[in-house]
Amino acid sequence: MMAFQDQYPDELAHCFGCGRLNAHGHHLRSFWDGETSVARFTPEPFHTAIPGFVNGGVLASIVDCHATGTAAAAAYRAEGRELGSLPPHRFVTASLRVDYQRPTPLGPELLLRGQVRSVTGRKVVIEVSVSVGAEVTVRGEVVCVELPETMRPRTDGPSGSVPGR
Amino acid sequence: MMAFQDQYPDELAHCFGCGRLNAHGHHLRSFWDGETSVARFTPEPFHTAIPGFVNGGVLASIVDCHATGTAAAAAYRAEGRELGSLPPHRFVTASLRVDYQRPTPLGPELLLRGQVRSVTGRKVVIEVSVSVGAEVTVRGEVVCVELPETMRPRTDGPSGSVPGR
Repeated sequence: MMAFQDQYPDELAHCFGCGRLNAHGHHLRSFWDGETSVARFTPEPFHTAIPGFVNGGVLASIVDCHATGTAAAAAYRAEGRELGSLPPHRFVTASLRVDYQRPTPLGPELLLRGQVRSVTGRKVVIEVSVSVGAEVTVRGEVVCVELPETMRPRTDGPSGSVPGR
Repeated sequence: MMAFQDQYPDELAHCFGCGRLNAHGHHLRSFWDGETSVARFTPEPFHTAIPGFVNGGVLASIVDCHATGTAAAAAYRAEGRELGSLPPHRFVTASLRVDYQRPTPLGPELLLRGQVRSVTGRKVVIEVSVSVGAEVTVRGEVVCVELPETMRPRTDGPSGSVPGR
């Protein structure tokens, strides 16, 4: 099944959190489950905070990427377009809020669930929960915006060239 | 010079963001600079968001660890105690807010600066900025709380044992 992140064009698929072309990244993959989006992620043993618990930065990172992926998928849906149809949607984060409601144990698979709160023009707001078994440990809210032209890699220039860098 | 994170006891020094004992982590190190705290961090080439820019999850992670380190240092200061004196202070994150004000270019060293907003009982609030040269790209606010007993590793039991895991 095609994940939201699988539809990112190659030049936009290097994200450390979810890029399929990043050799060192988390490779988060998100899917629709009816009206909500889901992703499953099993942290590495070194994704530690205090021993036994998942690092807050890693949790923030997967919340972030699940939200921006869901934002892109929601934008396709709002336009009645198929995921991956052209032109591509790709969102980046304007702001991220993460509440660590209880410690997240390190070991078991985590379930991320996203809810689309609003789709208005170039801005999409997503709420995300992270749970272990039946228990929600983290809640996040992410304000996502469509990738600005100034951040878009040139695909007609030399490989890897980025304007304004 | 001793970083805030250098005073964490060995059993609390495995954090992916700032633990000196995490072989795969970011190893963030924070210091006082007068009334503010500073840390310097050069992202790896694979800490990408869109090519040319730093990943938002990595930025959230270093903001988080700079804040919890600053919270510990602020707690020692509030008690008139030397950094690393016993009993140790170690803070974890209750909530994290990160505003990505502009894209952060990937390549140059980042400067993190922390401001202590409040120290009240077991709770410390820290504001953090991330800048590249003269330009602030990210602002964060982190609510830090002293490590609860339920998360504290047992140091008298078998190596690595964690209650409640």
